[in-house]
Amino acid sequence: MNTNAANSETQGVPRVVIVGAGFGGLSAAKALGNKEVQVTVLDRENHHLFQPLLYQVATAGLSPANIAQPVRAILRSKENIEILMADVTGFDVEKKLVLAGERSFPYDHLIVATGARHSYFGHPEWEQYAPGLKTLDDALGIRRRLLMAFEKAEAEKDPVERERLMTFVIVGAGPTGVEMAGAISEIARETMLRDFHHIDPSEARVILLDAADRVLQAFDPKLSEQAQGQLRNLKVDVRLKVSVQDVNESGVATANGFIHARTVIWAAGNAASPLMKSLPGTLDRAGRIQITSELNLPDHPEIYVIGDTANCAGKDGKPLPGVSPVAMQQGKWVAKNILARIKGEAAKPFSYWDRGSMATIGRNRAVADLHFVKFSGLPAWLTWVFVHLIFLMNMSSRVSVFLIWVWSYFTRAQGARLITSVGQAKKG
Amino acid sequence: MNTNAANSETQGVPRVVIVGAGFGGLSAAKALGNKEVQVTVLDRENHHLFQPLLYQVATAGLSPANIAQPVRAILRSKENIEILMADVTGFDVEKKLVLAGERSFPYDHLIVATGARHSYFGHPEWEQYAPGLKTLDDALGIRRRLLMAFEKAEAEKDPVERERLMTFVIVGAGPTGVEMAGAISEIARETMLRDFHHIDPSEARVILLDAADRVLQAFDPKLSEQAQGQLRNLKVDVRLKVSVQDVNESGVATANGFIHARTVIWAAGNAASPLMKSLPGTLDRAGRIQITSELNLPDHPEIYVIGDTANCAGKDGKPLPGVSPVAMQQGKWVAKNILARIKGEAAKPFSYWDRGSMATIGRNRAVADLHFVKFSGLPAWLTWVFVHLIFLMNMSSRVSVFLIWVWSYFTRAQGARLITSVGQAKKG
Repeated sequence: MNTNAANSETQGVPRVVIVGAGFGGLSAAKALGNKEVQVTVLDRENHHLFQPLLYQVATAGLSPANIAQPVRAILRSKENIEILMADVTGFDVEKKLVLAGERSFPYDHLIVATGARHSYFGHPEWEQYAPGLKTLDDALGIRRRLLMAFEKAEAEKDPVERERLMTFVIVGAGPTGVEMAGAISEIARETMLRDFHHIDPSEARVILLDAADRVLQAFDPKLSEQAQGQLRNLKVDVRLKVSVQDVNESGVATANGFIHARTVIWAAGNAASPLMKSLPGTLDRAGRIQITSELNLPDHPEIYVIGDTANCAGKDGKPLPGVSPVAMQQGKWVAKNILARIKGEAAKPFSYWDRGSMATIGRNRAVADLHFVKFSGLPAWLTWVFVHLIFLMNMSSRVSVFLIWVWSYFTRAQGARLITSVGQAKKG
Repeated sequence: MNTNAANSETQGVPRVVIVGAGFGGLSAAKALGNKEVQVTVLDRENHHLFQPLLYQVATAGLSPANIAQPVRAILRSKENIEILMADVTGFDVEKKLVLAGERSFPYDHLIVATGARHSYFGHPEWEQYAPGLKTLDDALGIRRRLLMAFEKAEAEKDPVERERLMTFVIVGAGPTGVEMAGAISEIARETMLRDFHHIDPSEARVILLDAADRVLQAFDPKLSEQAQGQLRNLKVDVRLKVSVQDVNESGVATANGFIHARTVIWAAGNAASPLMKSLPGTLDRAGRIQITSELNLPDHPEIYVIGDTANCAGKDGKPLPGVSPVAMQQGKWVAKNILARIKGEAAKPFSYWDRGSMATIGRNRAVADLHFVKFSGLPAWLTWVFVHLIFLMNMSSRVSVFLIWVWSYFTRAQGARLITSVGQAKKG
């Protein structure tokens, strides 16, 4: 095992290692930039991903480069931060080391922000038939499946098989599931409408399943109802109180019967990164580790865990939701607490400022809950576009996303409708 | 074996099958659009690729969606053209069938435009160490290798290994090799300059090898000399009269010694698609099939072969070069000949109108040979940009490429610097 040389260059300056360059890790890194600490950011990928728009890559509206940016480019101006690609495999909390295969990275303060993957409720074998949407490679794989389903249907003569190819099931009616269902229905009914000779893409069936009794469970029931109405307008077949019993290459088995479909997308359930198991602490059912109100581990105040991997109690005692504003506010807060403790001051308890939540359901449709006001339809959609543009602008030169959106809003073109081999190579 | 149903729908109308949706196949399809023929376009991919800009995807300047477009979208307005994804495996010229695995497609007139792949001069085992650049997946794979080389160098402590990681060898100094060498050198010296902590990307060595005594052999010697000067300004190490003896994971063996390099890119030599072997005719050394001046096979006038797969004599008796203008003009001509023969008229001999050639060597640098005038530097570069923009505009909504170029020209940002798994999954 070799200890990374970089960290031993500056003796005496406290070393902070951040694992994960998602919303949480990146906001911590920014807040520690050009401060009296030496920071190492480790990530498996070289890019930060704007996950809320990942469904647009999966549905061919945007290219990977429109929603992702090299971590190096984002943190370029921070002289005290080094960025290394590394697949972190565990921690040695006694020796204060982050382990990545044969490499190890010593820390004085550790920030773990490794996010979550999909959870298949104890059925990992479902993943090959029903991929989930967390990374750029996931999105490109799903895009390939969606587009190939139409291509295969065009070449298929058996009407039964053709119908199965043109049936798309989305499991889970949270924001991702609702966004995917709306976008797929729109592609079929608008973008692809005149592209084929033997099939009518508008006959595609998009089925959205959830075990709950309404879509967007985290939202106000009134907004759930409005979202369901908007999905119905987009011809999405919403089926509630339906629990999935099996997923295989023919489709989805539910208590109400078998749904034949060649394309199934998983948008139900998250599980925290399995790295949590190598940290000392208590895990909840979703695999998240219990943290203190100062965002660190009870027995290891030098280890902070934030974002989707952390079980952090909110004001009501319930765990905070796994959304980007929580991760970003926690990242900033952890940076403050680390700098305070270096100065000998006490760490302060975190409290989350919830500005509300939004979900979009295709062009012109969305729901928004800003607490003081709840609304839906075009005003909600414009708010959604505005908020996401602000975010993307902050990521720097993302002007082109805006232009692509404006362009495709008026032309209804879907610029990124390319099938590349990534999905095939990875998921077979 | 099942014969495709689509083709039997309209009896009596002549059936044209086009294999390949590159420059040649697409220009034939456009010219046959809404004419009294029924056309089927077969391609392995769902997109047409603007290959002259592929090196920009490989060097992270553009995204795949900027230089490629779904074939369906391009030919949408042609009511008589169906497009099917199919991996053509051979031909039954007696029964007049195109074979694709278990499927077959009957034709009255056949246009074969399957292009070329790289040729490793009888050493296919070199490909894994020195990938070539023909498809989007090739480009994403090379991009991954380039970016990963810098990432690995940043984490490497051994100075010898670090130098090998930062050495890039391009084999072949034709237009693609020259463009790649210039672009890699520019990325290292400009885009990435401030991105790393432990390495100085401007110390990257870019070595361009060729067995010939000058770069851009197809150009006027004066332009070759100017291109060499421009490459030197970009700090590209041009080594001529060097023939490659072996390529392995450590680098490239030449008669003048071994060059240690972790990244080698192949831009030397083309071989026509191996499908030519299943057509009746004479193949040349590059695997191209001999065609008549009417662009068809001597013994099978109903089979036309165009573009990089065809050996078509020019005015000087030498075979026409494998460039897009040849393929496009031939595609249009074949369409005319087919329509003429359907009317009972004779096919006419093709002649190529050579408007000249250009190659670009990074920002502001290029060489252009328009026959009546030869020039280089900024004027040549602006001509290059102008010509390529016209092409892209024709491909329809490619406005965003122009905006991305303008943006990155002034900011020197490289928007698409993302590492996705495609290259890894495919080439290991």
